[in-house]
Amino acid sequence: MTVADGQEAIEHAIAALAPQCDVLIISGGLGPTLDDLTRQAIAAVLGVELEVHPLAMEKLTAYFARLKRPMAESNKIQAMIPRGADMIENTCGTAPGIAASYRVPHSAHSCRLFAMPGVPSEMKAMFARDVLPQLTSAAGGAALISRTLHTFGMGESNLGQMIAALMQRGRNPSVGTTVANSQVSLRINSHFPSRVQALAELEKTAAACRQILGDLIFGEDDQTLAGVVAQMLVPRYHLAIAESGVEGVLARMLSDVPGSNRFFAQGWIASSDQAKTAMLQIPPELLSQHAGVSESVAGAMAAQARQLSGCDFGLAVAGVADASADAFGSFAIALAHADGVLTRTFHFTGDRDLVRDRSAKMALTMLRYHLLGKTMPF
Amino acid sequence: MTVADGQEAIEHAIAALAPQCDVLIISGGLGPTLDDLTRQAIAAVLGVELEVHPLAMEKLTAYFARLKRPMAESNKIQAMIPRGADMIENTCGTAPGIAASYRVPHSAHSCRLFAMPGVPSEMKAMFARDVLPQLTSAAGGAALISRTLHTFGMGESNLGQMIAALMQRGRNPSVGTTVANSQVSLRINSHFPSRVQALAELEKTAAACRQILGDLIFGEDDQTLAGVVAQMLVPRYHLAIAESGVEGVLARMLSDVPGSNRFFAQGWIASSDQAKTAMLQIPPELLSQHAGVSESVAGAMAAQARQLSGCDFGLAVAGVADASADAFGSFAIALAHADGVLTRTFHFTGDRDLVRDRSAKMALTMLRYHLLGKTMPF
Repeated sequence: MTVADGQEAIEHAIAALAPQCDVLIISGGLGPTLDDLTRQAIAAVLGVELEVHPLAMEKLTAYFARLKRPMAESNKIQAMIPRGADMIENTCGTAPGIAASYRVPHSAHSCRLFAMPGVPSEMKAMFARDVLPQLTSAAGGAALISRTLHTFGMGESNLGQMIAALMQRGRNPSVGTTVANSQVSLRINSHFPSRVQALAELEKTAAACRQILGDLIFGEDDQTLAGVVAQMLVPRYHLAIAESGVEGVLARMLSDVPGSNRFFAQGWIASSDQAKTAMLQIPPELLSQHAGVSESVAGAMAAQARQLSGCDFGLAVAGVADASADAFGSFAIALAHADGVLTRTFHFTGDRDLVRDRSAKMALTMLRYHLLGKTMPF
Repeated sequence: MTVADGQEAIEHAIAALAPQCDVLIISGGLGPTLDDLTRQAIAAVLGVELEVHPLAMEKLTAYFARLKRPMAESNKIQAMIPRGADMIENTCGTAPGIAASYRVPHSAHSCRLFAMPGVPSEMKAMFARDVLPQLTSAAGGAALISRTLHTFGMGESNLGQMIAALMQRGRNPSVGTTVANSQVSLRINSHFPSRVQALAELEKTAAACRQILGDLIFGEDDQTLAGVVAQMLVPRYHLAIAESGVEGVLARMLSDVPGSNRFFAQGWIASSDQAKTAMLQIPPELLSQHAGVSESVAGAMAAQARQLSGCDFGLAVAGVADASADAFGSFAIALAHADGVLTRTFHFTGDRDLVRDRSAKMALTMLRYHLLGKTMPF
């Protein structure tokens, strides 16, 4: 629930949510300014006064002493918490958090409140250090562990049919599909009474997915397609690229990988025919013979990128990303390697951003399958 | 409020929110599947039955007839709405929306509910066609109009000091600052009894901001820095770029502008010394004399990009985006134009993504001020 910066609104939110949950995590509104009213709202809901917490005041005083700045009166509010509540120490800032148990009126239900600052770095540190251990302990060892397996190139419904048995409702671990950034990902949630069991069952389900989908799965969790390709290239291979229609899209995917200079240091952006000839020495005859999207042109771009750079691989994408053009979404992709040039044509759908993203990822996928020594299955 | 796919959860959410608002907009859960329970939850909260809406059923039947597909029994639920509620026509899909007035129990308060499908295209069309006009009319002509003015290059606190008078609390239109994508933006909200007045006051406040900040403001609302530079270049000027440390970041910013081929068709990614020499003919002596981040090297890259491409401008960024390097965040930026080469060095802070984003935007800003015929004020 998103709540306005008002004490009454925060009180209403706590009162509305607490009856339906065992734990309520609140973020934001614990600072010294007039907007910061979470502390007051919690005290009001609990029906108690705010009082100075000695340890919090000590830390706050020390903080201002370290800065050699006088502490404004308004700052003292940050050392106050509702009577009877627990302070959650803030190791990264001045505003401590609040932990309190709220007994829902006219009911036997009790809800544990955790209020943390809104500053992400402070909140994350506080959550990891104090809140999560309390939640883990309250869960009596039960654990929900998730993993995401990423695929690219096959549609969501085809993929869903392949793993239909694993996606059945009620299965634990559960398997669901999500689509983002042109990728279809499988989300596995494993929920068991113990962490060991949750992890073991997660691994079994992940293995079952991999058994069915094989190389369609390129990575897990925060792995990117470019990052996975990078791992296959380093330290042995170097890659040069040539882009037309995706100017910078493929380059940026590659260079978003930390340490990208170890496998990627050269690229050409050559959108116009003139640029292709001037930069990559593509013969004008070839360009005029093959107007529009052409595997011959993309193949020549890849071969020249490889040749001119002296890299192991030349990867070229040449297509139409101008949404008003008839050939919008058509892309020729080519990979030049030691033994020849592989070329393919694709017709992508979606808006300008999407077709550019898809064509760059398809280029990476062609390279990935080549490095796997396999034929791309689509 | 984010609500689970359960009828009870949806009922609780409506009951919790309705007492505090005049209008409650609900999105999602009107389809034919078992997860879609918004319709049932609204009927339960209102204490009425669901009944078939004749017009909705007619449209649904016609839809399946058009597809030449039999209509599954489960689909008929989509033509049902709570008795006494109004149907909101879905011009883009099969599930109609629901508009209903909910009288909060034990209170004189009434809340207007609008439930729309979750599919963004269907929801947006429905909102624009039916919901917004009802809201506008209910507001009695009062209007809140917003505009965002974008700046790049000056820090948030400096900028805030310059426009402190306009940012005073309680002012209407209000002016606030936000930071995203390395840009500091001013958000103006103008809230008045009439749309005409709201717009007139918005314009006055925007003009006051521009009066103070001048060329620091590069654009408004969904304008991008690259898009603004593109407008200044087209149709007269062409740009070539050379990137090292920001491989593809600057290229992609430029090519994200629709029709980018009209001003940007050539670029070099040359990260290693070897690539700079091979691709841009930067003399090896220059590179060895000026190890690390150097204006001389960036200047030579810009000049060669201009020279080799025959473009009006050559823009080069050469810096260190390897977070483990001592010089991390140092970038030399150069602009080659008809009368010479402009070079500058910057030390950016932030993570790898941020320093790359900042250096590319600073390069665009150097070009923008050159096209304005002015000196960059930072």
